[in-house]
Amino acid sequence: MTKSPSVGIIMGSQSDWPVLSNAKEILEELQIPYEARIVSAHRTPDRMFTYAKEAEANGIQVIIAGAGGAAHLPGMVAALTHLPVFGVPMESATLKGMDSLLSIVQMPKGVPVGTLAIGKAGAINAALLAASVVALQDEGVCERLKAYRQAQTDAVTDFPVDP
Amino acid sequence: MTKSPSVGIIMGSQSDWPVLSNAKEILEELQIPYEARIVSAHRTPDRMFTYAKEAEANGIQVIIAGAGGAAHLPGMVAALTHLPVFGVPMESATLKGMDSLLSIVQMPKGVPVGTLAIGKAGAINAALLAASVVALQDEGVCERLKAYRQAQTDAVTDFPVDP
Amino acid sequence: MTKSPSVGIIMGSQSDWPVLSNAKEILEELQIPYEARIVSAHRTPDRMFTYAKEAEANGIQVIIAGAGGAAHLPGMVAALTHLPVFGVPMESATLKGMDSLLSIVQMPKGVPVGTLAIGKAGAINAALLAASVVALQDEGVCERLKAYRQAQTDAVTDFPVDP
Amino acid sequence: MTKSPSVGIIMGSQSDWPVLSNAKEILEELQIPYEARIVSAHRTPDRMFTYAKEAEANGIQVIIAGAGGAAHLPGMVAALTHLPVFGVPMESATLKGMDSLLSIVQMPKGVPVGTLAIGKAGAINAALLAASVVALQDEGVCERLKAYRQAQTDAVTDFPVDP
Amino acid sequence: MTKSPSVGIIMGSQSDWPVLSNAKEILEELQIPYEARIVSAHRTPDRMFTYAKEAEANGIQVIIAGAGGAAHLPGMVAALTHLPVFGVPMESATLKGMDSLLSIVQMPKGVPVGTLAIGKAGAINAALLAASVVALQDEGVCERLKAYRQAQTDAVTDFPVDP
Amino acid sequence: MTKSPSVGIIMGSQSDWPVLSNAKEILEELQIPYEARIVSAHRTPDRMFTYAKEAEANGIQVIIAGAGGAAHLPGMVAALTHLPVFGVPMESATLKGMDSLLSIVQMPKGVPVGTLAIGKAGAINAALLAASVVALQDEGVCERLKAYRQAQTDAVTDFPVDP
Amino acid sequence: MTKSPSVGIIMGSQSDWPVLSNAKEILEELQIPYEARIVSAHRTPDRMFTYAKEAEANGIQVIIAGAGGAAHLPGMVAALTHLPVFGVPMESATLKGMDSLLSIVQMPKGVPVGTLAIGKAGAINAALLAASVVALQDEGVCERLKAYRQAQTDAVTDFPVDP
Amino acid sequence: MTKSPSVGIIMGSQSDWPVLSNAKEILEELQIPYEARIVSAHRTPDRMFTYAKEAEANGIQVIIAGAGGAAHLPGMVAALTHLPVFGVPMESATLKGMDSLLSIVQMPKGVPVGTLAIGKAGAINAALLAASVVALQDEGVCERLKAYRQAQTDAVTDFPVDP
Repeated sequence: MTKSPSVGIIMGSQSDWPVLSNAKEILEELQIPYEARIVSAHRTPDRMFTYAKEAEANGIQVIIAGAGGAAHLPGMVAALTHLPVFGVPMESATLKGMDSLLSIVQMPKGVPVGTLAIGKAGAINAALLAASVVALQDEGVCERLKAYRQAQTDAVTDFPVDP
Repeated sequence: MTKSPSVGIIMGSQSDWPVLSNAKEILEELQIPYEARIVSAHRTPDRMFTYAKEAEANGIQVIIAGAGGAAHLPGMVAALTHLPVFGVPMESATLKGMDSLLSIVQMPKGVPVGTLAIGKAGAINAALLAASVVALQDEGVCERLKAYRQAQTDAVTDFPVDP
Repeated sequence: MTKSPSVGIIMGSQSDWPVLSNAKEILEELQIPYEARIVSAHRTPDRMFTYAKEAEANGIQVIIAGAGGAAHLPGMVAALTHLPVFGVPMESATLKGMDSLLSIVQMPKGVPVGTLAIGKAGAINAALLAASVVALQDEGVCERLKAYRQAQTDAVTDFPVDP
Repeated sequence: MTKSPSVGIIMGSQSDWPVLSNAKEILEELQIPYEARIVSAHRTPDRMFTYAKEAEANGIQVIIAGAGGAAHLPGMVAALTHLPVFGVPMESATLKGMDSLLSIVQMPKGVPVGTLAIGKAGAINAALLAASVVALQDEGVCERLKAYRQAQTDAVTDFPVDP
Repeated sequence: MTKSPSVGIIMGSQSDWPVLSNAKEILEELQIPYEARIVSAHRTPDRMFTYAKEAEANGIQVIIAGAGGAAHLPGMVAALTHLPVFGVPMESATLKGMDSLLSIVQMPKGVPVGTLAIGKAGAINAALLAASVVALQDEGVCERLKAYRQAQTDAVTDFPVDP
Repeated sequence: MTKSPSVGIIMGSQSDWPVLSNAKEILEELQIPYEARIVSAHRTPDRMFTYAKEAEANGIQVIIAGAGGAAHLPGMVAALTHLPVFGVPMESATLKGMDSLLSIVQMPKGVPVGTLAIGKAGAINAALLAASVVALQDEGVCERLKAYRQAQTDAVTDFPVDP
Repeated sequence: MTKSPSVGIIMGSQSDWPVLSNAKEILEELQIPYEARIVSAHRTPDRMFTYAKEAEANGIQVIIAGAGGAAHLPGMVAALTHLPVFGVPMESATLKGMDSLLSIVQMPKGVPVGTLAIGKAGAINAALLAASVVALQDEGVCERLKAYRQAQTDAVTDFPVDP
Repeated sequence: MTKSPSVGIIMGSQSDWPVLSNAKEILEELQIPYEARIVSAHRTPDRMFTYAKEAEANGIQVIIAGAGGAAHLPGMVAALTHLPVFGVPMESATLKGMDSLLSIVQMPKGVPVGTLAIGKAGAINAALLAASVVALQDEGVCERLKAYRQAQTDAVTDFPVDP
């Protein structure tokens, strides 16, 4: 029996996957069940509505949404569910992701999106932030997240040069 | 018998009305029937879906949408209808409307929003642009639009000083 | 007998054509007659004046104008005609199109330019926005535009990964 | 017996309280126990270290951290705990909060901060996002959060004008 | 007999005069004949064409053009004359003149506009720059300009405090 | 006998020459005598002082100064001479020339620098602007400048595509 | 006998004093002798040259230079002395000090300016940074600086609210 | 006997070394003893605390800290020591170092970081600024710094072209 996914990774386009697959890898490493789907706010608004409204019933606990340019996916999904939504601004072709960042982070009061850094670092951190939420009720995830963080600390070598 | 509205003015919040009522005044001056409604992408997503999907059947020809911050209303409405949508970025509290502007104008290919200037000038110009669209099939509006433009030109005085 | 063009695509320089030809392709796909010309606001101001002033008489219904840097073409053409003008900011060499975007979108009240995204997405969307205007009076274009949008929705696949 | 706080609201300075008290009000309305403290990354780094390292043991589930300018508090706290940290950029005196936003959101991979909008809207949304996390394991909070969101939707009136 | 003006000060709107009158005051102080007119690129394009094309024949040697927002006046005038054109970006309502600055300074190769600072300092400096051009062929102006500069240097006091 | 130079092209570094040599080519084409020298505000402040103070006596009429980053050369030279100074912002490594542009254009009242576009277009236009100044007292330059401008207009072809 | 000043505070204009006097107050509190003078890079370049070249001989150890807009004073002084120079960007009228900041901080390799925050915080911190330099060779200053820092930490109260 | 290091170069990641090693080369050339270590504010906060608190006792006089993105290292180290800290913003992947710059320079009053330019120039200048501090009490360093600066001036050739 497959466990139902705790985290839903959604993105506006197949082309966002090379960035958002970094989130997937973190979730797999921490053994958090997830699903990954293309849900475009602009090209498939109906699919987005259905996805967001049914997420809770489908057992999703946290939604990670990546989008670029006039990035409406994270905010619109947040408007349609009360689940925590974490947004990842894609690096856009012309404005380097500043447009994506502002479109995601500057949400009006009442509909929150927890926004991460632009691009790959943001995708990784969205997964770690989702893990920190899941860890509140899953001791195993909590242990693995702490171990991941400790390993990260241990991996920092000390002397780049010995003058 | 009231004529059904040709132009729909929508906005995310009552607080946008002082700016968007400038669009209303232009439409009234050009005798273009319109309606004005609050349709928040974030707080009333269902109303937005219904409004956008039924706009064509309701006789709407052009939609003017004003929004601020992570301004998703114009783009989401454009995702839900093939009617022309013109977006007006509100001047936001902190970033002076630069966030609103980028959230509206940087739409991905496939879903266009014709974006106007930030704030009052944008609201006025959205109405004039809507009028230019309506004028293509309504000679009366065309005449009044040309007259409005001519009057605007004539109103520019010449010498601020006579040295 | 050739149909007279409904849409005029103009641009400041031959070097803008690789971007603006994306607009042409959309118009061709939707079977909307168009013309494409180089009309530089800065290097050929007289040609620009003539083009803009005669556009209506020549049967043009919508003007798509692309320009970069201190991008004056869309706004100047809009100053010389009451037809709807849609502006496409070119990605500029140094400031990534932010200069082009602000020079096009921040028009003063009275002279509207409907501005699209920077670069290729903007060129495509300018054509789609023009099509939405033409569609108001041309049922064939309306049907083809709806079909284009539906095909776009259908083309979005669902699962990038199956975990 | 007082319930131990689930949410810790921290801020760099007493002067941030008028903004962050908006988060407090939401938490009170949703009946989520919280604490609010001044913990300056720059002026009281030791207090910050202690606070972050002991937060989990003290029963804190989510940390809301507000800071302005070179806003290091959210990111440093996130470096010292695996709990979810949500950052609120204060509107700064000169750069309108753009400095605060970038200092909070652009975290390197490995240490996530879920960033909200600049200023008051961000403070409110940080509380709502914290509530959405708490709601995953507290049915009462979940019900109250849903009711809050529904009331928010219902409060949006429809017609600003009746033309 | 009145001397024909050497410097033409033009601006898009009467509302620019409080800023551009600072240029006038410098020219008067340096006894350089000038004229000041409202010539809007967007609202009076024909007047702008005529003004720019006839400027040389009318004895104008330097044109100072102030404009705000999508500020097209300096660049369009420069497109229509080979006379030196100096542009003054007005401080705009929303973007603080950054839009005006980029719209004026980022001219494409072939049509130069010498751009000054945003607002009052720019207006003063446009007049001083015009004076430096006129001074090349008018010894009186040259003397007065040097005296003005020297007086400016002499007016800088030394000690703000004596600790 | 060699004519003494009318235009001085100065730059902060040898590495600016590939950009500023575009100014040289225009001046040569218009047969305006010039000199080109490396004068660094930061590395050779004494040479800069001497250059600027002796420029008028050396017959220089216009100074073109290119600089990048914290670009102080144009403004400092303008502080040391009353001759017209035109500044060319170099495209900088990290901030794409926005730092150079603001460092050159935002001069305080009293010391003007006529600023051109970032990079190559700015270098070309600085030369054309210098030519327009020289042309006021040199009929030959005036004729050649007008011819250059006319040739530029004539070189703009009309139809990029013939649909 | 008066002690010769260790720190020189210079600024481009009397109007910068309300901001830079904050640096003075810190130096007085830490009992570090200083002098404060108006030395404008643009209006008094000769005075600036003399000041910078003679600073070392006059016993100055650290220079604090405040300037706004195209802020050339810190960088030019740094070009003329090898003493440590700390720059304070003034908040400018239109671009909120972003122009001042970039003009000061983006110095080319070879001529360093240690740049502080825009405005009052920057002035205070320039004095504290100067104190940290002086403290390296003056035990009394070192003790007082440590005490100042400790008092600052102690002054941070703990609970803004007691829920 | 090895001299204990006067300057500590620290950085958040091994990947910053290619930039910061430019600082090392300057220090070696000026014969200033230094150490270089990886001390990540986010991944090794404890090491950072220890490093900063023990720096003075370890004989460090100046700290050079490089960091990118939400660059907290310089400011946090400055919060933990009264020694002079000079910050070098790394050029970040997406926002070109503007995020790093603002995160380092916009420190609140009370905790100063002297900030240098983004990237390689900043690394070189941080070392030169550190040298200028060390030179205040080390005549040998002072002589070598002056010689370095003189050689830099002498290396600027004069004529890029001989027209």
